[in-house]
Amino acid sequence: MEFNLPDGMAVLERTPGTLRAMLAGLPDAWTEANEGRDTWSPHIIVRHLILGDETDWIPRAEIILRRDGANHFVPFDMTGHLETTDGQHLETLLDRFATLRGDNIAKLKSWALSDEDLALEGVHPEFGVVTMRQLLATWVAHDLGHIVQIARVMAKQYRAEVGPWRKYLSVMGGQR
Amino acid sequence: MEFNLPDGMAVLERTPGTLRAMLAGLPDAWTEANEGRDTWSPHIIVRHLILGDETDWIPRAEIILRRDGANHFVPFDMTGHLETTDGQHLETLLDRFATLRGDNIAKLKSWALSDEDLALEGVHPEFGVVTMRQLLATWVAHDLGHIVQIARVMAKQYRAEVGPWRKYLSVMGGQR
Repeated sequence: MEFNLPDGMAVLERTPGTLRAMLAGLPDAWTEANEGRDTWSPHIIVRHLILGDETDWIPRAEIILRRDGANHFVPFDMTGHLETTDGQHLETLLDRFATLRGDNIAKLKSWALSDEDLALEGVHPEFGVVTMRQLLATWVAHDLGHIVQIARVMAKQYRAEVGPWRKYLSVMGGQR
Repeated sequence: MEFNLPDGMAVLERTPGTLRAMLAGLPDAWTEANEGRDTWSPHIIVRHLILGDETDWIPRAEIILRRDGANHFVPFDMTGHLETTDGQHLETLLDRFATLRGDNIAKLKSWALSDEDLALEGVHPEFGVVTMRQLLATWVAHDLGHIVQIARVMAKQYRAEVGPWRKYLSVMGGQR
């Protein structure tokens, strides 16, 4: 499937509602669960997504759009969410993410990016030259990857409880 | 995490809303995508979930609750959804699933299962003796596993489009 803006945005704009449908009002036993030491709970994943919308995707797109040669991305802080959203309840975070994402989608739409704009380049701290198109496709895939992670973390909490059915639940054996 | 009815039902009752938030109104390019030959699209997964709610989880719980010794489960039909929901649009299926799931949760609640009830047994066609508790925990994990699958199928459509970021998107390398 080739990336295009309308299809990509259709996923991006659904993520806040998906997270809300999955997590709002859910007992802490689910939202604070993880896959073991140094792994993320659904609650922490939402905090990470917020930081991405605040500091990563759109800010990097803006760096690319400068077209001034100073197109090096700022490295993303994989632990930054521990500071920026410390102590906030999940419901508050879900609201904050929905607002942020709405603003970011509005900004993306307002740019009305052409195919040429999608070919514009930025410099990733590790990968080197990447395109706007790759950045935006990654934003979409990153959302989906974290939805996968949230559902997987939750499913694994019943690893023992499902008894012999575990054999057919491939989700129990996924990464970490 | 030990299985208990309120926590388990909290997940089960959210699944229709999660599927709707993820899939309603989404372009067919996403909902009809799959992971290759003989794999399921999000659209087909919804059809499979409907068949489960119609013929598997609650009907098996009812077999267990008979307490009459005739507690052998009917084998689940892994291709039955191809007949029962043929040609139905995704939006129709999402509505049908929400109604079905609502009815099934209401039935489950009405039973007010005790810890003793959760220990009641049925006979699975492959596994032999299983408990009500294992059946219900599996229902929950099965929902979550298919949410994982839907998001993973979608993410993989951008496998090429994400370029070098693929390295950090573990979702691209998941099962199938």
